[in-house]
Amino acid sequence: MNDVRQLARRVEGGDLSAVARAISFVVDERPGSEELASELYRRSSSVHKVGLAGPPGSGKSTLTGRLISYWRGQGLKVGVLAVDPSSPVSGGAFLGDRLRIQDHAGDPGVYIRSLATRGRVGGLTPTIFGAIHVLEAAGFQKIIVETVGIGQDEVEVAHAADTVLYVVTPGLGDEIQALKAGIMEIGDIFVVNKADLQGKDKAVADLRRALAIGAEASPADGWAAPVLATSALTGEGIAALGEMIERHRDHLDSSGQRSRRLKDQLRAEVSLYLARRISRSVEKRLTERHLSALVERKTDPVTLGQELLEARGAA
Amino acid sequence: MNDVRQLARRVEGGDLSAVARAISFVVDERPGSEELASELYRRSSSVHKVGLAGPPGSGKSTLTGRLISYWRGQGLKVGVLAVDPSSPVSGGAFLGDRLRIQDHAGDPGVYIRSLATRGRVGGLTPTIFGAIHVLEAAGFQKIIVETVGIGQDEVEVAHAADTVLYVVTPGLGDEIQALKAGIMEIGDIFVVNKADLQGKDKAVADLRRALAIGAEASPADGWAAPVLATSALTGEGIAALGEMIERHRDHLDSSGQRSRRLKDQLRAEVSLYLARRISRSVEKRLTERHLSALVERKTDPVTLGQELLEARGAA
Repeated sequence: MNDVRQLARRVEGGDLSAVARAISFVVDERPGSEELASELYRRSSSVHKVGLAGPPGSGKSTLTGRLISYWRGQGLKVGVLAVDPSSPVSGGAFLGDRLRIQDHAGDPGVYIRSLATRGRVGGLTPTIFGAIHVLEAAGFQKIIVETVGIGQDEVEVAHAADTVLYVVTPGLGDEIQALKAGIMEIGDIFVVNKADLQGKDKAVADLRRALAIGAEASPADGWAAPVLATSALTGEGIAALGEMIERHRDHLDSSGQRSRRLKDQLRAEVSLYLARRISRSVEKRLTERHLSALVERKTDPVTLGQELLEARGAA
Repeated sequence: MNDVRQLARRVEGGDLSAVARAISFVVDERPGSEELASELYRRSSSVHKVGLAGPPGSGKSTLTGRLISYWRGQGLKVGVLAVDPSSPVSGGAFLGDRLRIQDHAGDPGVYIRSLATRGRVGGLTPTIFGAIHVLEAAGFQKIIVETVGIGQDEVEVAHAADTVLYVVTPGLGDEIQALKAGIMEIGDIFVVNKADLQGKDKAVADLRRALAIGAEASPADGWAAPVLATSALTGEGIAALGEMIERHRDHLDSSGQRSRRLKDQLRAEVSLYLARRISRSVEKRLTERHLSALVERKTDPVTLGQELLEARGAA
């Protein structure tokens, strides 16, 4: 109890080793972590969260590095959460490592953490939300949430961020193009990265065309998602991207959508917290005998689930 | 009630339009879907499920097409569930469509369905499991579960399948290589697809080396994951892959691991079913007033979650 309070105070003082410890605490759900999360949440306020999604190979890590430098140049403290589907067993956390060895090691205004998610069924978001709240409490002014995953991982990043950048490159394969077409609606800003490569202009034009079609299909929220070209390698286009991110933020504020997004994030957070907690408690009551009855098809998952639910005080 | 029974009987008769309807029923969680799921589950038995994971561009769809032909050649009925992270809004279901326009349209021994998952927070697995049980009831003898997603989606495919193929190609970028290194442990069989491309031998050797290191790190389950080369384009290596899949199946049976995996799948299914159900019921009770209190940081997600849990009969 006292320890948790003390850790909370050190986080609020911006102590990076305390930040690291607090995130581990929350992510690993150690005893006292719920108290810590409550404490930190109530004493801090919400920070602008920028999500990075897009296929592997689109250069999201390098772009993240550029955005860190851009915001550091404005004197802002930047936290990065890299949602990393690789495993803790066989060498996870590579993203965070790769970022760490770059320019920002030793800068007390930057904190980079990768969150390994591999192997967890049922979503990673409770972990992201908890880590975000620690960074908010520690006074970070921009939070980048980045994922190397495609699919569910991107959905969850989109649900945790205020402004979602969708990053692609010229000349990715057909399958990625098709995939891209399917995930249009999660991006607030589209970035054609590696603008030094051939095919940039075509990629930008293709995306703009696809977005125009999408915009007709879905209700306007007063924001036409722009397409920007960047080269994370040379730094080209980064300042324009930074400005566009601020414009989106202003748009969220002035249109009242910021509060709507925040509420959606919080709804997801509460819901996932409960789902995780309850399913864990029910799982404990799932005996080998239950599982055998399922394998033998004497009962079924729905019926058994309902029975377990009725038998409990499930928390 | 009567309708549900009737639909169940038609599914069991192998009627493909009934199969399609039953899967929609279960996936969309329409009224009566739980009854349908129970009914079908209890009257059928478990089928060998083969999962396909791997980065976009590795040719999983084409490989799926080849495996369908291979098993059709042995007279087996094959069901395919393509877990598709693209959206229903802007053109999801492309995978299923692409498969469908290939060789197997009109073959009553093949059923292909894509399950759009985009936009759902908290995992897609309840949907996969439900659809699998429909296919089991309809008498399919092989079920392929394929995903285009990377990260969480792969984890979930791995949790739904008995034999997981991890598909890569020679010469994918660095990021994908790193990703690959992180997800070694979900594959039972590794496939270097597009063996017609340059770099095949190196890719096979690299993978074997990485797997040998991994095998030392993790406890032996008596199965050393093999690496095979295929060309889905020419059909090269498909028969050998088919035989290896059967060998893995035999290994699961003879080692007793089949039943272990089945129980793990069922545990995940029950747990996710409950998580979804409970979070939905709690979400209904999350009012605008609760959300405003969260935004203003007068309460926090953990405390509010616990209060909602205590206030309920949460189901």
